[in-house]
Amino acid sequence: MNGAILVLSGPSGAGKSTIIHHASEQIGAYHFSISTTTRSPRAGEQDGVDYYFVSREAFEEDIKAGAFLEYATVHGNYYGTSLKPVKEALAQGKLVIFDIDVQGHRLVRAKMRDYVTSAFITPPSLSELEKRLYARSTDNNDVIQKRIENAKEEIKAIGEFDFVIINDVVEKASHQFATVANAARLKQNQEELNQLIHYWLEN
Amino acid sequence: MNGAILVLSGPSGAGKSTIIHHASEQIGAYHFSISTTTRSPRAGEQDGVDYYFVSREAFEEDIKAGAFLEYATVHGNYYGTSLKPVKEALAQGKLVIFDIDVQGHRLVRAKMRDYVTSAFITPPSLSELEKRLYARSTDNNDVIQKRIENAKEEIKAIGEFDFVIINDVVEKASHQFATVANAARLKQNQEELNQLIHYWLEN
Repeated sequence: MNGAILVLSGPSGAGKSTIIHHASEQIGAYHFSISTTTRSPRAGEQDGVDYYFVSREAFEEDIKAGAFLEYATVHGNYYGTSLKPVKEALAQGKLVIFDIDVQGHRLVRAKMRDYVTSAFITPPSLSELEKRLYARSTDNNDVIQKRIENAKEEIKAIGEFDFVIINDVVEKASHQFATVANAARLKQNQEELNQLIHYWLEN
Repeated sequence: MNGAILVLSGPSGAGKSTIIHHASEQIGAYHFSISTTTRSPRAGEQDGVDYYFVSREAFEEDIKAGAFLEYATVHGNYYGTSLKPVKEALAQGKLVIFDIDVQGHRLVRAKMRDYVTSAFITPPSLSELEKRLYARSTDNNDVIQKRIENAKEEIKAIGEFDFVIINDVVEKASHQFATVANAARLKQNQEELNQLIHYWLEN
């Protein structure tokens, strides 16, 4: 598997999707990992695009079968990343991008350390995050308050990430993201390094 | 100190200087760390450009004064990196580039872990390295043989580096180097992260 993994974390409202979209010409083809969840789709969400929506029974069977790279329970719902599409994309040499939380980053890094580069993406300040969450008005006040409390905890974990991208000016943040993504592609895992050493000495 | 360090290692003949030169427009301003040595200048080498050439006595005084970030003895001569110019460049927010060996990389990383990104640059194979060393004919056969034996040992340490750049096609290697250098600039050290968290929560 000579692909690579780029984990993105950061508060809802940080602008991760916008940045990926802006940078897509500079980073070339990638595989965006879609999470599986047992929560109900919200208005406008599509199965296989935003999430794979499955039943609790199906999710728990997959847990038993060891099908998840990582999973967690948030507010009573399961969220997880299926291992199979990730492995297939890595085997094809692709860059696999994850948008998961700080806890998900820990689990993916623990299991696939030498494939992973990670970046935490955040608005420049807590007050700016609040402003953006209220401005987009897709969530009610309780949800926004929960997102803000989560963000105040998650920001403390930025030292666990390889890079921190401050999304103040979107063009600048997108350019930084492209640099990180292209560096992530260059990362070589142990299997590749062993092959390289063997080839190098014999040729 | 909000600068960053990029350590480059790899066999003599890998094309490190050529790659840096090719990539310089893409990586912006940087500070190239010049080593200090007690060996005699070779034909064409300039003090303050290739090395700082000093006496054994001066070098040993600097060791006692703790003036070196790293130093080593190679074939009876001292080689080292003075800490002061590195700290000054880091305080100015610069990218500091080191061209040092595998052992030097270990020492710099141990002392300044959260500033360091590293890349091992190598020709695509042992035979290609031999070909290049003989073609440039700046060394006699004994020196070339010693360089080759060193390279056979150093290649085994590539797993210690963040990136490995195969210098097969110089344009491609230079582009990869630029990506690595720009990613190195984005790396934030613990001091910067602590400031960021503090600022973020208070604003």
